[in-house]
Parts: sequence; structure tokens; C-alpha cells
Amino acid sequence: MSPAEIENALRTHLNKLLPHHSVREVYEYATLPGGKLFRPHLVWSILKDTNPKLYLNSLNDHFSDHALLASSVEFHHSYTLIHDDLPCMDNDTQRRGKDCTHIKYGQWQALLTGDGLLNISYQLLSKIKGTRSLEVIRFFSWALGPKGLIHGQVLDLSQEMTTSFKNTIRTHELKTARLIQVAILASAALACEKNNKREKKLWKYSKLLGINFQLLDDLSELASVELSQHERDVNPWLHHCLECFAETTNSLRYFNLVSSELKLSETNKIIFEYYKKLLEIILDNQKVIENHLEKKISLSPIISLIKNFSQI
Amino acid sequence: MSPAEIENALRTHLNKLLPHHSVREVYEYATLPGGKLFRPHLVWSILKDTNPKLYLNSLNDHFSDHALLASSVEFHHSYTLIHDDLPCMDNDTQRRGKDCTHIKYGQWQALLTGDGLLNISYQLLSKIKGTRSLEVIRFFSWALGPKGLIHGQVLDLSQEMTTSFKNTIRTHELKTARLIQVAILASAALACEKNNKREKKLWKYSKLLGINFQLLDDLSELASVELSQHERDVNPWLHHCLECFAETTNSLRYFNLVSSELKLSETNKIIFEYYKKLLEIILDNQKVIENHLEKKISLSPIISLIKNFSQI
Repeated sequence: MSPAEIENALRTHLNKLLPHHSVREVYEYATLPGGKLFRPHLVWSILKDTNPKLYLNSLNDHFSDHALLASSVEFHHSYTLIHDDLPCMDNDTQRRGKDCTHIKYGQWQALLTGDGLLNISYQLLSKIKGTRSLEVIRFFSWALGPKGLIHGQVLDLSQEMTTSFKNTIRTHELKTARLIQVAILASAALACEKNNKREKKLWKYSKLLGINFQLLDDLSELASVELSQHERDVNPWLHHCLECFAETTNSLRYFNLVSSELKLSETNKIIFEYYKKLLEIILDNQKVIENHLEKKISLSPIISLIKNFSQI
Repeated sequence: MSPAEIENALRTHLNKLLPHHSVREVYEYATLPGGKLFRPHLVWSILKDTNPKLYLNSLNDHFSDHALLASSVEFHHSYTLIHDDLPCMDNDTQRRGKDCTHIKYGQWQALLTGDGLLNISYQLLSKIKGTRSLEVIRFFSWALGPKGLIHGQVLDLSQEMTTSFKNTIRTHELKTARLIQVAILASAALACEKNNKREKKLWKYSKLLGINFQLLDDLSELASVELSQHERDVNPWLHHCLECFAETTNSLRYFNLVSSELKLSETNKIIFEYYKKLLEIILDNQKVIENHLEKKISLSPIISLIKNFSQI
């Protein structure tokens, strides 16, 4: 599925679900053009990997179960970004190379647009026709609610996240992995018959993927020679270097294993696309990054494991 | 259903759906003790009126379909109040006789608690076992999303609400009536077989109820001899007195009609409980209120129509 097609579906859904009012402009600004569209791409790649026939039948249908799920996870992601950027949260001003929604349209518009997108994410799920639709909504609300993604935001903002390596991993799991898990597991649930063994593997695979992506993102942030005090305080690689290294290499090995076992070649392609930019930063700045680490370790094993992705 | 029992269910659901973390205190503060619990009371009264046997079977079961729906609408109501009170929205400091959640716990906790309750409202609906559960979620998300309740908040905050009588009524319909409609129509949908004719009547009845309650609330706010500039600017009774009067009396007549036709005696009791306080204010200050109105009209017809409620 091309980015343009994913964005077309997002546009179709907004068009249908928003009132005829100037507020449409705010929702479009906040969601389009999409970012990397990682989560909707995962929805489609898992479908292609697990049920290629249904994938072909679902293309060009913005109201197929997977098109609804793909837009739902992307709109849900957008709501978290809009709320995260607000002054009372991370107080950011720029997002995806332009002013944040609250900078452009004011805070109350941003807050209500976030609330609106959150509702829309459930509204799209409620239109899914597959027999497991209610199960998907139950999983979605658990994974992204107060015990899930939102608890990750709480651990981050309360700074509990940085008090131990365990808390860092838990925060990455909740704040980043849960939505990725929803994209992958809900897509699989709507693609084929229930298969507990496969779903258990996908659960771990998608959880480690979210955590791994965040840790590599943290690592790539050490590419500057000079780090800010905040970066030095919160970057887990500066405080738990060996644990981060072990977690990262173990997860990357697990991906390679499960990818071949479950034949996730399309999904691997999507993930590698996403990892490529991180890999480039790490390759270009390997020495600088390694010098920041408290223990003298080499990043080469991580680099080779990421490269393995593209060869599966 | 007693207020204590409704609150017990809210407590049970929070207990189950929140992580073991100090954040529980914020959710409990924001939702308990409940306010008038009007919306969950409506869920139960409609069940009692339309399917008394199922009502008796559902008592004492916090996971019956109607207990889940009652908590869902109340938590959804709470999220809108928490977000409405934030500095970037209405900037209120007091709610239900205590500090607003953001005053007590800070803005990011309030924002995330609102987001969490919004997710919880869908999580509870996803546990409903009745065959119409997906239909209920579709209706809920439409009624309370960007075309529904949230659009009412937009019309209010953008001040489009006060530009015409039509816009005032539209805002009351979206911001106040939609959640009341969800309580009434979803309860009926889960209580008995589909009946289009009855649901059409309940649709209009619940819509007019929300609008009517807001207009009577606006009227009761004219009980002070001196009005603030803001009150004089926005109160619809000061700008569209005859239209407000006609809308109010027509709606009250329609309630009486539909109440007897559909035998909504329990629901009438709940509504009268809620109207009683407004009626007292209007009775105690009838002359003061009448003097504020641009046209010389008497409030007596409105007062008698409200009194009729208690006699059905």
C-alpha cells in the first residue's frame, strides 16, 4: 500500500466524519500530510504477509476492515501527538516540519481536535464488519487507555521513566509499543482465523519492536558531540549502557527469528524503511556515539543485526 | 437504582481498569463522588420502564450491559467536564464544590485523566454482550465525536453559538442533548427488540430534553437582579425571548405526550428530580426573571408544565 493511498483513505474518512464547518481545516492540518505512516503501513503489511488474497481484495476499498483499522491507528497516533505537544505537556512548537496545531490554531482547537480524533479512532473501528471487531475494540481500548499508552505518558511526564532501566523499558513498552502492537495484532486478528500460537509470537515481536525502535532512537540522539543537560539526564544509553545493548541485540535477533518463521517479509520491509534513517545516523556517527557511552562497547553488532533485516 | 449503587459500579470499573499507581487518586477525584448522576440514572430508568424483568436481573451486577453503559456515559461526561474546565477552554477553578482536577493535580494530569476516561468509556462499551453492542458503539462515537458533542464545544468556544437562536439551539442539541440521547437510546437498544417507531419517538424526546434542560438552566441564571455583562451578552432569553418560550413550552408538552404514550414513569421521576431545583429557583425569583425579559411574558405556563411532570 502506497503512502498516497493511505493518505487518501485518511482524507476520505475525515471528509465523512467531520461536520461541514471550518473545523475541517484544523483536523486536516493536524493529520495531513501524514508523517512516516508507520502504523498504517504495518496494518497493511501484516495483512499482505498473512492473507495476500484478502490484501488484494481490500485494496482500493476505503471501508474494508483493514482500511478502517489503518486509519484508526493513524488518527489515534495523531491525537496523542497533538495532546503531547500542548504547553501543559511537552510544550513543543514544531511537529513534522511545521507549527504544532496549537501554535497554528490555538490551544482549545488543538485540545478538541485531539479529543475528536480519539473518538474517530473508535468510530472507524465500530464500522469493522469482521466477526472479531468487538474483540479488536476491547484490545485497542485496553492497550491505549489508562493501563496502556496513557500510562506510558504518565510515567514519562512524572519522570518515573528515568528512575531505573526497568521503568525506561516499561515506558517505551506502553508509550510506543502498545500502538504498534495494536496495528500488528489487530491486523492479524482481522486477516485470518484465530491462532493463539502465532498471536503469542506476534505479541512479543510487536512489543520488542516498539521498545527496540525507541532505544535505537535514543541511541541516534547521541550523535552530537555536545549533549544538552536534559539529554544527559534522560538518555538511557548514558545510564544503563550494557542493559540497553543487551536488550537491543536480543530483540533484533528475535525479530530475525520470528520474521522468517512467520514469513513476515512485507512487514520486515516496512520496518527496515523505518530503521534505515536511524541506521544511517548511527553509521555516520558511530565513533561520536560510542565515545558518549560509559562502557567501551562497539555498536558494530547492532549495526550488522539491523542490516540483516534487509536481507531476509 | 440508588446513587450509591451507581457510584459503587463506577468505583468497581475504575478499580479494574486503572493501573496500580498513584494516578488512581486523580481519576477518583475527578469522578467521585459523582454529581447528580443524571445520565446513568436515565440509563437505568429507561431499562426499568421498558424491560422491568431485565432491570431486576441487572441489579447488583456491575458487569451487566446496562451497568457498563451507565458507567460509560458517566465517565464520558466526566472527561468532557475535566477538559472543559482547563485554562485553555473555560478556565474554571471550581467544579462540584471542590477544586477542578487541574487545580488540584496540575494540567497534564487533568488532560491525561480526561483522555483516559474517554478511552475507558469505549472500553466499557466493548464489554457489552448484547447483540446490538457494535451498533451502540457506532451511535455513541457519532453522537459524541466531531459531528456531535465536540462540535457543540466548538460552537460554544468559537462564540458561533450566540450569533442566532438557531445556533443556540444547535449548540444545546450537540453539547448537552447528544449524551442524554446516548443514555436513553442506547439503554433502550440494549433493553428490548429493535422497534423503529419507538426509537424515533425516544430520539425526539431525548433531543428536546437536552435542549429544554439547557434553556431552563439559562432561564434560572436570570434569577439575580444584577446580571454580569457576559450573562447579558450570551443568555438566549435576553435576545430571543419569544423563541425560547415557544421552544420550552412545546418541548414540555411533547414530554408529557410521549411519557404517557411510552409509559416512561420511572424516567419522568428522574427528570423531575433534576428539574425540581430549577423549578424552585424559577418559582422563588419569577418576578426578577420576568423583569429581565425584553417582552412582557409570564413564566406561569412553563411552571405549570414542569409541575405536570410530577403528576404523570
